[in-house]
Amino acid sequence: MSAAELNFEIQQFYARQMRCLDGGDAAGFASTFTADAVFTHEPGEVITGRPVIAATTNANITRIRDAKVTRRHWFGMMVIEPESEDLIRTQYLAMTTSSNPDGGATVGAVSLVDDVLVRHDGQLSTASRTVRGDRVTR
Amino acid sequence: MSAAELNFEIQQFYARQMRCLDGGDAAGFASTFTADAVFTHEPGEVITGRPVIAATTNANITRIRDAKVTRRHWFGMMVIEPESEDLIRTQYLAMTTSSNPDGGATVGAVSLVDDVLVRHDGQLSTASRTVRGDRVTR
Amino acid sequence: MSAAELNFEIQQFYARQMRCLDGGDAAGFASTFTADAVFTHEPGEVITGRPVIAATTNANITRIRDAKVTRRHWFGMMVIEPESEDLIRTQYLAMTTSSNPDGGATVGAVSLVDDVLVRHDGQLSTASRTVRGDRVTR
Repeated sequence: MSAAELNFEIQQFYARQMRCLDGGDAAGFASTFTADAVFTHEPGEVITGRPVIAATTNANITRIRDAKVTRRHWFGMMVIEPESEDLIRTQYLAMTTSSNPDGGATVGAVSLVDDVLVRHDGQLSTASRTVRGDRVTR
Repeated sequence: MSAAELNFEIQQFYARQMRCLDGGDAAGFASTFTADAVFTHEPGEVITGRPVIAATTNANITRIRDAKVTRRHWFGMMVIEPESEDLIRTQYLAMTTSSNPDGGATVGAVSLVDDVLVRHDGQLSTASRTVRGDRVTR
Repeated sequence: MSAAELNFEIQQFYARQMRCLDGGDAAGFASTFTADAVFTHEPGEVITGRPVIAATTNANITRIRDAKVTRRHWFGMMVIEPESEDLIRTQYLAMTTSSNPDGGATVGAVSLVDDVLVRHDGQLSTASRTVRGDRVTR
Protein backbone atom coordinates (compact mmCIF):
# COMPACT_ATOMS: atom_id res chain seq x y z
CA MET A 1 0.00 0.00 0.00
CA SER A 2 1.37 3.41 -0.94
CA ALA A 3 1.80 6.17 1.64
CA ALA A 4 -1.06 8.10 0.04
CA GLU A 5 -3.40 5.11 0.17
CA LEU A 6 -2.52 4.51 3.82
CA ASN A 7 -3.13 8.19 4.58
CA PHE A 8 -6.56 8.02 2.97
CA GLU A 9 -7.44 4.85 4.86
CA ILE A 10 -6.42 6.47 8.15
CA GLN A 11 -8.38 9.67 7.45
CA GLN A 12 -11.48 7.58 6.72
CA PHE A 13 -10.91 5.52 9.86
CA TYR A 14 -10.73 8.63 12.05
CA ALA A 15 -13.71 10.32 10.39
CA ARG A 16 -15.89 7.26 11.06
CA GLN A 17 -14.49 6.69 14.56
CA MET A 18 -15.19 10.22 15.70
CA ARG A 19 -18.59 10.37 13.94
CA CYS A 20 -19.56 7.48 16.24
CA LEU A 21 -18.39 9.43 19.28
CA ASP A 22 -20.00 12.72 18.29
CA GLY A 23 -23.20 10.95 17.24
CA GLY A 24 -23.55 9.37 20.67
CA ASP A 25 -22.71 5.78 19.67
CA ALA A 26 -20.46 4.69 22.54
CA ALA A 27 -20.46 1.01 21.50
CA GLY A 28 -19.58 1.89 17.90
CA PHE A 29 -16.80 4.15 19.11
CA ALA A 30 -15.40 1.49 21.43
CA SER A 31 -15.49 -1.07 18.60
CA THR A 32 -12.85 0.96 16.74
CA PHE A 33 -10.38 0.17 19.56
CA THR A 34 -8.65 -3.15 20.13
CA ALA A 35 -10.05 -5.35 22.88
CA ASP A 36 -7.15 -4.44 25.19
CA ALA A 37 -6.64 -0.84 24.03
CA VAL A 38 -5.08 1.67 26.42
CA PHE A 39 -6.63 5.16 26.44
CA THR A 40 -4.69 7.76 28.41
CA HIS A 41 -5.62 11.34 29.25
CA GLU A 42 -2.51 13.03 30.56
CA PRO A 43 -1.80 13.47 33.32
CA GLY A 44 -2.64 10.24 34.92
CA GLU A 45 -6.05 9.06 33.74
CA VAL A 46 -5.68 5.65 32.10
CA ILE A 47 -8.50 3.37 31.03
CA THR A 48 -7.96 -0.06 29.50
CA GLY A 49 -10.07 -2.35 27.38
CA ARG A 50 -13.03 -1.95 25.09
CA PRO A 51 -15.76 -2.41 27.78
CA VAL A 52 -14.26 0.33 29.98
CA ILE A 53 -13.82 2.61 26.98
CA ALA A 54 -17.49 2.05 26.08
CA ALA A 55 -18.71 2.74 29.61
CA THR A 56 -16.58 5.86 30.04
CA THR A 57 -17.63 7.13 26.64
CA ASN A 58 -21.26 6.53 27.45
CA ALA A 59 -20.96 8.60 30.62
CA ASN A 60 -19.33 11.42 28.65
CA ILE A 61 -22.05 11.33 26.00
CA THR A 62 -24.73 11.58 28.68
CA ARG A 63 -22.95 14.50 30.30
CA ILE A 64 -22.74 16.36 26.99
CA ARG A 65 -26.40 15.65 26.18
CA ASP A 66 -27.40 16.98 29.59
CA ALA A 67 -25.42 20.14 28.86
CA LYS A 68 -27.58 20.51 25.72
CA VAL A 69 -24.65 21.05 23.38
CA THR A 70 -23.59 19.22 20.23
CA ARG A 71 -19.92 18.39 20.38
CA ARG A 72 -17.71 17.64 17.35
CA HIS A 73 -14.14 16.46 17.17
CA TRP A 74 -11.77 17.81 14.53
CA PHE A 75 -8.38 16.26 13.81
CA GLY A 76 -5.66 18.03 11.85
CA MET A 77 -1.97 18.49 11.16
CA MET A 78 -1.44 14.73 11.27
CA VAL A 79 1.95 13.02 11.10
CA ILE A 80 1.74 9.37 10.01
CA GLU A 81 4.66 7.03 10.76
CA PRO A 82 4.20 3.40 9.71
CA GLU A 83 6.43 0.93 11.52
CA SER A 84 5.03 -1.84 9.34
CA GLU A 85 1.95 -2.57 7.24
CA ASP A 86 0.16 -3.50 10.45
CA LEU A 87 1.41 -0.97 13.03
CA ILE A 88 1.22 2.75 12.38
CA ARG A 89 1.97 5.61 14.74
CA THR A 90 0.09 8.88 14.26
CA GLN A 91 0.32 12.23 15.99
CA TYR A 92 -2.22 14.99 15.43
CA LEU A 93 -3.99 18.01 16.84
CA ALA A 94 -7.52 17.48 18.11
CA MET A 95 -10.05 20.20 18.76
CA THR A 96 -13.65 20.08 19.90
CA THR A 97 -16.39 22.48 18.95
CA SER A 98 -19.63 22.76 20.91
CA SER A 99 -22.81 24.15 19.39
CA ASN A 100 -25.50 25.40 21.70
CA PRO A 101 -29.23 25.67 21.03
CA ASP A 102 -29.13 29.47 20.75
CA GLY A 103 -26.83 29.20 17.73
CA GLY A 104 -23.14 29.67 17.29
CA ALA A 105 -20.38 27.41 18.48
CA THR A 106 -17.30 27.64 20.63
CA VAL A 107 -13.97 25.89 20.57
CA GLY A 108 -13.47 23.51 23.46
CA ALA A 109 -10.23 21.83 24.41
CA VAL A 110 -7.27 21.57 22.03
CA SER A 111 -4.99 18.54 22.47
CA LEU A 112 -1.96 16.85 20.99
CA VAL A 113 -2.74 13.16 20.51
CA ASP A 114 -0.48 10.14 19.92
CA ASP A 115 -2.10 6.99 18.58
CA VAL A 116 -0.91 3.49 17.79
CA LEU A 117 -3.05 1.92 15.08
CA VAL A 118 -2.91 -1.79 14.31
CA ARG A 119 -4.35 -3.82 11.47
CA HIS A 120 -6.05 -7.18 12.01
CA ASP A 121 -7.68 -8.99 9.09
CA GLY A 122 -7.25 -5.86 7.01
CA GLN A 123 -9.11 -3.61 9.48
CA LEU A 124 -7.50 -0.74 11.40
CA SER A 125 -8.11 -0.33 15.13
CA THR A 126 -6.71 2.00 17.77
CA ALA A 127 -4.46 0.03 20.14
CA SER A 128 -3.42 3.04 22.17
CA ARG A 129 -4.34 6.71 22.43
CA THR A 130 -2.59 9.31 24.56
CA VAL A 131 -4.27 12.72 24.77
CA ARG A 132 -2.30 15.67 26.12
CA GLY A 133 -4.56 18.68 26.64
CA ASP A 134 -2.82 21.94 25.85
CA ARG A 135 -3.65 23.43 29.23
CA VAL A 136 -1.80 20.54 30.82
CA THR A 137 1.27 20.57 28.61
CA ARG A 138 1.75 24.31 28.59
CA MET B 1 -8.46 6.16 -10.25
CA SER B 2 -7.22 5.02 -6.86
CA ALA B 3 -9.04 5.98 -3.66
CA ALA B 4 -6.16 8.29 -2.72
CA GLU B 5 -6.27 10.06 -6.08
CA LEU B 6 -10.03 10.51 -5.79
CA ASN B 7 -9.60 11.86 -2.26
CA PHE B 8 -7.07 14.41 -3.46
CA GLU B 9 -9.29 15.45 -6.36
CA ILE B 10 -12.22 15.96 -3.99
CA GLN B 11 -10.15 17.95 -1.48
CA GLN B 12 -9.00 20.25 -4.30
CA PHE B 13 -12.55 20.58 -5.56
CA TYR B 14 -13.83 21.66 -2.15
CA ALA B 15 -10.94 24.04 -1.49
CA ARG B 16 -11.60 25.85 -4.78
CA GLN B 17 -15.39 25.76 -4.39
CA MET B 18 -15.31 27.32 -0.94
CA ARG B 19 -12.57 29.82 -1.86
CA CYS B 20 -15.09 31.15 -4.42
CA LEU B 21 -17.75 31.47 -1.75
CA ASP B 22 -15.51 33.04 0.88
CA GLY B 23 -13.95 35.35 -1.72
CA GLY B 24 -17.35 36.72 -2.69
CA ASP B 25 -17.62 35.05 -6.12
CA ALA B 26 -21.25 33.89 -6.15
CA ALA B 27 -21.20 32.99 -9.86
CA GLY B 28 -17.98 31.00 -9.48
CA PHE B 29 -19.42 29.19 -6.48
CA ALA B 30 -22.67 28.38 -8.31
CA SER B 31 -20.70 27.06 -11.29
CA THR B 32 -19.35 24.24 -9.11
CA PHE B 33 -22.92 22.89 -8.81
CA THR B 34 -24.82 21.02 -11.50
CA ALA B 35 -27.43 23.02 -13.41
CA ASP B 36 -30.25 21.33 -11.47
CA ALA B 37 -28.46 20.94 -8.13
CA VAL B 38 -30.53 20.72 -4.96
CA PHE B 39 -29.19 22.66 -1.94
CA THR B 40 -30.94 21.96 1.34
CA HIS B 41 -30.53 23.63 4.71
CA GLU B 42 -32.32 21.49 7.26
CA PRO B 43 -34.94 21.91 8.34
CA GLY B 44 -36.94 22.81 5.38
CA GLU B 45 -35.06 25.33 3.26
CA VAL B 46 -34.52 23.91 -0.23
CA ILE B 47 -33.20 25.80 -3.23
CA THR B 48 -32.84 24.27 -6.66
CA GLY B 49 -30.79 25.10 -9.73
CA ARG B 50 -27.64 27.04 -10.40
CA PRO B 51 -29.32 30.46 -10.94
CA VAL B 52 -31.12 30.28 -7.60
CA ILE B 53 -27.96 29.11 -5.85
CA ALA B 54 -26.09 32.06 -7.37
CA ALA B 55 -28.76 34.58 -6.32
CA THR B 56 -29.06 33.23 -2.78
CA THR B 57 -25.28 33.12 -2.43
CA ASN B 58 -25.01 36.67 -3.66
CA ALA B 59 -27.48 37.86 -1.03
CA ASN B 60 -25.51 36.04 1.68
CA ILE B 61 -22.23 37.56 0.50
CA THR B 62 -23.75 41.04 0.65
CA ARG B 63 -25.09 40.41 4.14
CA ILE B 64 -21.65 39.26 5.37
CA ARG B 65 -19.91 42.23 3.73
CA ASP B 66 -22.37 44.57 5.41
CA ALA B 67 -21.54 42.94 8.73
CA LYS B 68 -17.89 43.83 8.05
CA VAL B 69 -16.56 40.36 8.78
CA THR B 70 -14.48 37.99 6.66
CA ARG B 71 -16.02 34.55 6.71
CA ARG B 72 -14.18 31.32 5.92
CA HIS B 73 -15.46 27.78 5.53
CA TRP B 74 -13.47 24.83 6.89
CA PHE B 75 -14.31 21.22 6.00
CA GLY B 76 -12.96 18.27 7.95
CA MET B 77 -13.41 14.67 9.07
CA MET B 78 -14.62 13.68 5.60
CA VAL B 79 -16.00 10.27 4.68
CA ILE B 80 -15.85 9.54 0.94
CA GLU B 81 -18.04 6.80 -0.53
CA PRO B 82 -17.85 6.33 -4.29
CA GLU B 83 -20.84 4.59 -5.84
CA SER B 84 -19.08 4.69 -9.21
CA GLU B 85 -16.35 6.64 -10.97
CA ASP B 86 -18.94 9.33 -11.68
CA LEU B 87 -21.06 9.48 -8.51
CA ILE B 88 -19.48 9.94 -5.10
CA ARG B 89 -21.17 10.52 -1.76
CA THR B 90 -19.31 12.54 0.88
CA GLN B 91 -20.12 13.46 4.45
CA TYR B 92 -18.09 15.97 6.43
CA LEU B 93 -18.05 18.54 9.21
CA ALA B 94 -18.20 22.18 8.14
CA MET B 95 -17.29 25.13 10.31
CA THR B 96 -17.21 28.84 9.62
CA THR B 97 -14.85 31.35 11.13
CA SER B 98 -15.51 35.08 11.06
CA SER B 99 -12.74 37.64 11.41
CA ASN B 100 -13.67 41.14 12.45
CA PRO B 101 -11.79 44.37 11.76
CA ASP B 102 -10.60 44.70 15.37
CA GLY B 103 -8.65 41.45 15.06
CA GLY B 104 -9.33 37.96 16.23
CA ALA B 105 -11.89 35.55 14.90
CA THR B 106 -14.79 33.53 16.20
CA VAL B 107 -16.25 30.19 15.23
CA GLY B 108 -19.65 30.45 13.60
CA ALA B 109 -21.99 27.59 12.87
CA VAL B 110 -20.85 23.96 12.83
CA SER B 111 -22.73 21.61 10.52
CA LEU B 112 -22.78 18.02 9.29
CA VAL B 113 -23.01 18.05 5.50
CA ASP B 114 -23.96 15.33 3.00
CA ASP B 115 -23.01 15.88 -0.63
CA VAL B 116 -23.54 13.99 -3.86
CA LEU B 117 -20.76 14.74 -6.34
CA VAL B 118 -21.03 13.81 -9.99
CA ARG B 119 -18.49 13.79 -12.77
CA HIS B 120 -19.26 15.09 -16.27
CA ASP B 121 -16.51 15.28 -18.90
CA GLY B 122 -13.97 14.57 -16.18
CA GLN B 123 -15.07 17.49 -14.00
CA LEU B 124 -16.62 17.12 -10.54
CA SER B 125 -19.74 19.10 -9.59
CA THR B 126 -22.02 19.11 -6.56
CA ALA B 127 -25.38 17.64 -7.53
CA SER B 128 -26.84 17.83 -4.05
CA ARG B 129 -25.87 19.30 -0.69
CA THR B 130 -27.72 18.84 2.58
CA VAL B 131 -26.54 20.95 5.52
CA ARG B 132 -27.65 20.05 9.03
CA GLY B 133 -26.63 22.74 11.51
CA ASP B 134 -25.68 21.30 14.88
CA ARG B 135 -28.11 23.52 16.73
CA VAL B 136 -30.89 21.97 14.68
CA THR B 137 -29.85 18.34 14.99
CA ARG B 138 -29.04 18.42 18.69
CA MET C 1 5.15 11.06 -8.10
CA SER C 2 1.37 11.00 -8.29
CA ALA C 3 -0.73 13.97 -7.20
CA ALA C 4 -1.94 12.00 -4.18
CA GLU C 5 1.60 11.11 -3.11
CA LEU C 6 2.67 14.74 -3.47
CA ASN C 7 -0.34 15.83 -1.43
CA PHE C 8 0.55 13.42 1.35
CA GLU C 9 4.18 14.55 1.34
CA ILE C 10 3.09 18.19 1.60
CA GLN C 11 0.62 17.48 4.43
CA GLN C 12 3.40 15.71 6.37
CA PHE C 13 5.78 18.56 5.66
CA TYR C 14 3.37 21.15 7.05
CA ALA C 15 2.41 19.06 10.09
CA ARG C 16 6.08 18.72 11.06
CA GLN C 17 6.93 22.34 10.23
CA MET C 18 4.16 23.75 12.37
CA ARG C 19 4.75 21.24 15.19
CA CYS C 20 8.22 22.80 15.45
CA LEU C 21 6.72 26.27 15.66
CA ASP C 22 4.00 25.41 18.14
CA GLY C 23 6.43 23.35 20.21
CA GLY C 24 8.76 26.32 20.59
CA ASP C 25 11.56 25.07 18.32
CA ALA C 26 12.48 28.21 16.39
CA ALA C 27 15.62 26.69 14.85
CA GLY C 28 13.74 23.59 13.73
CA PHE C 29 11.01 25.77 12.23
CA ALA C 30 13.53 27.96 10.41
CA SER C 31 15.27 24.87 9.03
CA THR C 32 12.14 24.04 7.02
CA PHE C 33 12.68 27.23 5.00
CA THR C 34 15.29 27.73 2.30
CA ALA C 35 18.39 29.71 3.28
CA ASP C 36 17.12 32.75 1.38
CA ALA C 37 13.40 32.30 2.02
CA VAL C 38 11.10 35.33 1.95
CA PHE C 39 8.40 35.46 4.64
CA THR C 40 5.81 38.21 4.20
CA HIS C 41 3.02 39.28 6.50
CA GLU C 42 0.75 41.56 4.52
CA PRO C 43 0.72 44.43 4.54
CA GLY C 44 4.31 45.31 4.44
CA GLU C 45 6.25 43.16 6.90
CA VAL C 46 8.90 41.19 5.00
CA ILE C 47 11.68 39.14 6.55
CA THR C 48 14.31 37.32 4.52
CA GLY C 49 16.63 34.43 5.21
CA ARG C 50 16.72 31.56 7.66
CA PRO C 51 18.61 33.40 10.45
CA VAL C 52 16.11 36.26 10.50
CA ILE C 53 13.20 33.83 10.39
CA ALA C 54 14.70 31.96 13.35
CA ALA C 55 15.25 35.16 15.37
CA THR C 56 11.78 36.54 14.66
CA THR C 57 10.20 33.19 15.46
CA ASN C 58 12.12 32.98 18.68
CA ALA C 59 10.82 36.39 19.76
CA ASN C 60 7.26 35.32 18.95
CA ILE C 61 7.65 32.08 20.91
CA THR C 62 8.89 34.02 23.93
CA ARG C 63 5.98 36.44 23.68
CA ILE C 64 3.46 33.58 23.57
CA ARG C 65 5.11 31.78 26.49
CA ASP C 66 4.98 34.99 28.50
CA ALA C 67 1.28 35.23 27.74
CA LYS C 68 0.93 31.73 29.27
CA VAL C 69 -1.03 30.31 26.37
CA THR C 70 -0.38 27.29 24.16
CA ARG C 71 -0.78 28.23 20.54
CA ARG C 72 -1.48 25.78 17.70
CA HIS C 73 -1.59 26.32 13.95
CA TRP C 74 -4.19 24.58 11.83
CA PHE C 75 -4.02 24.52 8.02
CA GLY C 76 -6.96 23.57 5.83
CA MET C 77 -8.74 23.88 2.50
CA MET C 78 -5.44 23.60 0.65
CA VAL C 79 -4.99 24.04 -3.10
CA ILE C 80 -1.81 22.42 -4.45
CA GLU C 81 -0.45 23.51 -7.82
CA PRO C 82 2.80 21.88 -8.92
CA GLU C 83 4.76 23.81 -11.54
CA SER C 84 7.27 20.96 -11.67
CA GLU C 85 8.48 18.09 -9.50
CA ASP C 86 10.64 20.60 -7.63
CA LEU C 87 8.48 23.73 -7.38
CA ILE C 88 4.97 23.60 -5.98
CA ARG C 89 2.61 26.45 -5.18
CA THR C 90 0.11 26.00 -2.35
CA GLN C 91 -2.66 28.19 -1.00
CA TYR C 92 -4.50 27.41 2.22
CA LEU C 93 -6.40 28.75 5.20
CA ALA C 94 -4.46 29.01 8.46
CA MET C 95 -6.00 29.40 11.89
CA THR C 96 -4.48 29.57 15.34
CA THR C 97 -6.00 28.33 18.54
CA SER C 98 -4.78 29.43 21.96
CA SER C 99 -5.36 27.39 25.09
CA ASN C 100 -5.13 29.10 28.45
CA PRO C 101 -4.31 27.56 31.81
CA ASP C 102 -7.90 27.85 33.05
CA GLY C 103 -9.07 25.51 30.30
CA GLY C 104 -10.79 26.08 27.02
CA ALA C 105 -9.35 27.58 23.91
CA THR C 106 -10.09 30.43 21.57
CA VAL C 107 -9.56 30.95 17.87
CA GLY C 108 -6.90 33.51 17.07
CA ALA C 109 -6.21 34.98 13.69
CA VAL C 110 -7.45 33.41 10.45
CA SER C 111 -5.31 33.97 7.34
CA LEU C 112 -5.07 33.06 3.68
CA VAL C 113 -1.52 31.89 2.95
CA ASP C 114 0.39 31.46 -0.32
CA ASP C 115 3.52 29.32 -0.25
CA VAL C 116 6.16 28.36 -2.77
CA LEU C 117 7.70 25.01 -1.88
CA VAL C 118 10.90 23.78 -3.50
CA ARG C 119 12.59 20.41 -3.47
CA HIS C 120 16.36 20.02 -3.03
CA ASP C 121 17.92 16.55 -2.73
CA GLY C 122 14.44 15.11 -2.35
CA GLN C 123 13.53 17.35 0.61
CA LEU C 124 10.78 19.99 0.55
CA SER C 125 11.43 23.49 1.93
CA THR C 126 9.42 26.68 1.99
CA ALA C 127 11.02 29.23 -0.34
CA SER C 128 8.37 31.87 0.16
CA ARG C 129 5.35 32.41 2.39
CA THR C 130 2.86 35.25 2.14
CA VAL C 131 0.32 35.53 4.97
CA ARG C 132 -2.74 37.72 4.51
CA GLY C 133 -4.66 38.08 7.75
CA ASP C 134 -8.39 38.24 7.23
CA ARG C 135 -8.74 41.45 9.19
CA VAL C 136 -6.35 43.05 6.71
CA THR C 137 -7.87 41.70 3.52
CA ARG C 138 -11.46 42.33 4.46
